[in-house]
Amino acid sequence: MTKKTSSQTSGEVFLVGAGPGDPELLTVKAARLLGEADVVLIDDLVGSAILSLCPQARVIHVGKRGGCKSTPQAFIEKLLVREASAGHKVVRLKGGDPSVFGRAGEEIAALDAANITYEIVPGVSSGLAAAATIGASLTHRDFAQGVAFVTAHGADGAAVDWRALASAALTLVVYMGVSRAGEMQKSLLEGGMSAVTPVIAVENVSRPDARTVVATVATMQQAFARSALKSPAIIVVGEALRDRAAKLAADVYSQGNFANSRSA
Amino acid sequence: MTKKTSSQTSGEVFLVGAGPGDPELLTVKAARLLGEADVVLIDDLVGSAILSLCPQARVIHVGKRGGCKSTPQAFIEKLLVREASAGHKVVRLKGGDPSVFGRAGEEIAALDAANITYEIVPGVSSGLAAAATIGASLTHRDFAQGVAFVTAHGADGAAVDWRALASAALTLVVYMGVSRAGEMQKSLLEGGMSAVTPVIAVENVSRPDARTVVATVATMQQAFARSALKSPAIIVVGEALRDRAAKLAADVYSQGNFANSRSA
Repeated sequence: MTKKTSSQTSGEVFLVGAGPGDPELLTVKAARLLGEADVVLIDDLVGSAILSLCPQARVIHVGKRGGCKSTPQAFIEKLLVREASAGHKVVRLKGGDPSVFGRAGEEIAALDAANITYEIVPGVSSGLAAAATIGASLTHRDFAQGVAFVTAHGADGAAVDWRALASAALTLVVYMGVSRAGEMQKSLLEGGMSAVTPVIAVENVSRPDARTVVATVATMQQAFARSALKSPAIIVVGEALRDRAAKLAADVYSQGNFANSRSA
Repeated sequence: MTKKTSSQTSGEVFLVGAGPGDPELLTVKAARLLGEADVVLIDDLVGSAILSLCPQARVIHVGKRGGCKSTPQAFIEKLLVREASAGHKVVRLKGGDPSVFGRAGEEIAALDAANITYEIVPGVSSGLAAAATIGASLTHRDFAQGVAFVTAHGADGAAVDWRALASAALTLVVYMGVSRAGEMQKSLLEGGMSAVTPVIAVENVSRPDARTVVATVATMQQAFARSALKSPAIIVVGEALRDRAAKLAADVYSQGNFANSRSA
């Protein structure tokens, strides 16, 4: 967990995973560090309930999504270095886990370059929380040799190689995929993935308004559109979901909500 | 997080991720549930320090590794059903996250079949904690389109398709891979992965005796043997590690411990 460098300053930075949204899914360590922090930098994905854990801290919002103008990554890095150099205990809180689509690499490089002491505290990635909501084992040994966490947004808009992923016998957990569901569907089918492979999307993972949509690779784009699935959502694809998809669709049907069951 | 079924019983089962080992890397929710449980079933991978959180509970060890005879999965499932049916609040604590190599699928199916109310509580998977130790972003957008969590032990001894994985542009996080490092190395090279791709193994992730070994795909088997790398360990492979591998090797060199730096 600890990655410390020798340092001339008395401040320290903690890059901390905030988990998927539910404040109870913070780690005990994250909660403790928030209570001890002088300064807390947070993303938009981190809910405001979590801030009740750090009433003593100066909170700086550095979100990169939503209606407001986003904070450039270079500015965030400068801020981390400046606050730590001033002797402060700084918590950089990131949605999910810092090592998975958290751009931790760039902040680590900046802290290394400035010789700032830091520590990374892992968190519950949203994909793991989505699996818990679904009730699925992502690595069910009868169906998958493992699980891949991917984003539908490649580097600088580069296309994701869905065909290579389709052939690797992995359950796919897709972050930031809602707006690219059509492209993803087409490429998975072209890559040889079966059209009846189960797909389950979870919107607002771990929050009170979480919602699941059950589909298949063949129906996913249509099902997401009909259900008005919105970001942030996690899309899980794979044979490992088959039992859960059938059960979730049956539950929806028995509750008289046909919107989802039709797309199953 | 919640997956509840209608139930005739008053008991309930919580399938809870215990995280990688450090008790502070439990979630706040896991710690609360442990404090409320009547019965706690734990794996060998869960450290004894965590048990101080549930002094009121009856603790049943159901480990599947180590020197003792392992508990058959079917027996664990019967135990869960029996204790919940007796009206108890049961916490089934699993190392890491229940959805990643935790065999949660089989326990979920058993609970569904018995109509037991249950909830899955995600945890910090050991692979995420290994990344935090290394200080690496597993999904650095310049190098990887995502990250795959795989085990070197396929279903019923089936071989892992390392060649398909080698071609998917994913950082690989390998669980239970130490004893199969040679086979993995050979197949990754045959699958077209560059021999100089960085490899970092973390033994005893998140524990006080955690240790890292830095190598490349070409040198991994030799490096692990020379360092006497032991299970449990997480092996991370990918270009996303390049900066960290160089820095870790330099740190080891500067500390006069040449065992690791030679294999970098």
